[in-house]
Amino acid sequence: MSPAPKALVFDVFGTCVDWRGSIIAEGRRLNAERGWKIDWEGLVDAWRGAYQPNMQKVRSGQLPWTHLDVLHRMALDALLPAYLGGTPKKAVRASDMERINTMWHRLKPWPDAVSGLRRLKTRHIIGSMSNGNVALLTNMAKFASLPWDLVFSAEWVRHYKPDRETYLSAPQFLGLKPRDVMLVAAHKSDLDGARRAGLMTCFVPRPLEFGRAFLKSGAYDAAYEKRFDLNVRDFRELATALGC
Amino acid sequence: MSPAPKALVFDVFGTCVDWRGSIIAEGRRLNAERGWKIDWEGLVDAWRGAYQPNMQKVRSGQLPWTHLDVLHRMALDALLPAYLGGTPKKAVRASDMERINTMWHRLKPWPDAVSGLRRLKTRHIIGSMSNGNVALLTNMAKFASLPWDLVFSAEWVRHYKPDRETYLSAPQFLGLKPRDVMLVAAHKSDLDGARRAGLMTCFVPRPLEFGRAFLKSGAYDAAYEKRFDLNVRDFRELATALGC
Repeated sequence: MSPAPKALVFDVFGTCVDWRGSIIAEGRRLNAERGWKIDWEGLVDAWRGAYQPNMQKVRSGQLPWTHLDVLHRMALDALLPAYLGGTPKKAVRASDMERINTMWHRLKPWPDAVSGLRRLKTRHIIGSMSNGNVALLTNMAKFASLPWDLVFSAEWVRHYKPDRETYLSAPQFLGLKPRDVMLVAAHKSDLDGARRAGLMTCFVPRPLEFGRAFLKSGAYDAAYEKRFDLNVRDFRELATALGC
Repeated sequence: MSPAPKALVFDVFGTCVDWRGSIIAEGRRLNAERGWKIDWEGLVDAWRGAYQPNMQKVRSGQLPWTHLDVLHRMALDALLPAYLGGTPKKAVRASDMERINTMWHRLKPWPDAVSGLRRLKTRHIIGSMSNGNVALLTNMAKFASLPWDLVFSAEWVRHYKPDRETYLSAPQFLGLKPRDVMLVAAHKSDLDGARRAGLMTCFVPRPLEFGRAFLKSGAYDAAYEKRFDLNVRDFRELATALGC
């Protein structure tokens, strides 16, 4: 690897936190609490499925700048009726919809994430680099104890990854060269976007991001790639690789 | 006091860190190391004196958006010759000028600041709210162990305090109402700017900000004011007042 990066920025959904498992778990608790029968596995996959198409509406200019909480809510409103599983629609009130939508603020970290980030923080600037909005990322960091030095969000620059502007915001605002900043992510398309912008890259597979069935189907691509500066099993291995 | 704030944002220079004492101390170490005779007390007061006029050039549109590291450097270049104290000008090299300019990234916290912020962080979102640029504030937080949840900087919104846009950026990006956010500051004009924008306010006097001679002269105004929601002696008293 070339010289060590001065700052590390992290994709969040899937890379730092288990969005699918967290939403299913909170959703099932809600079902039990309220006597609902919502199909949370089906809903969360459809909800996440709406993520890229809705951001693309913003990237393409079809929608003006709209932050992720609002895109999440648009998708939730459209999708929920198909996953009620017999729950009466009126049983889910406006305040419930808000609670469901902010489940994305309360996602649990992968087991290695917090300890790995704490080690990395001792010698590097660490930040998020996410399409989540600032409030979402800040609330999630409090909830999950993600010890960011600062929050980088698509919202600061009004561009969604993989737009070049989003990746370049980290070196620009930190007064660093792109090569002094490394993106850590579980998604190869995200890392390729960062590479095109000149950042260093580190791939961390998260085989359980899409659930056990997806992993068993063989569809998950965990292969290391030479085009990335680093490939590591988890954040602890990354900390060790960087001497932290 | 009205209900407790959800987020606390802090003025940084003077409120969290002792800029004057820190720069004089690092400057004197540099004098000893390099055999210089720079008058650091005179320089730092003149340097800080250039702060508001230079930001006003940006606020008024006389200068395009220019972040604080650049404004600091413009002022340093103009002021240093008058404070060399007989040091040959060529003894101060380009790399020295950069080191001097980034002294603003390496300021020491007041004795109560870090422990107070740690307590406040357990129950509130805490962030900077400073005219410093993002890199400066991030580097300073690492250096001084200021445990921000996130960095709010004039640079994100390209407006210097007391412009309304700067104060309002905290509630807006956090998805909160202005009254849910409290500015903590040692400067009454800063707090008045935040009040006009609808934020809660807390005054913390920092009698030593401008040095012992200034304090002895009686010019320092440490009086509590009813128009602020809180007046406290230091960050520990603030943490206690908020039940942290």
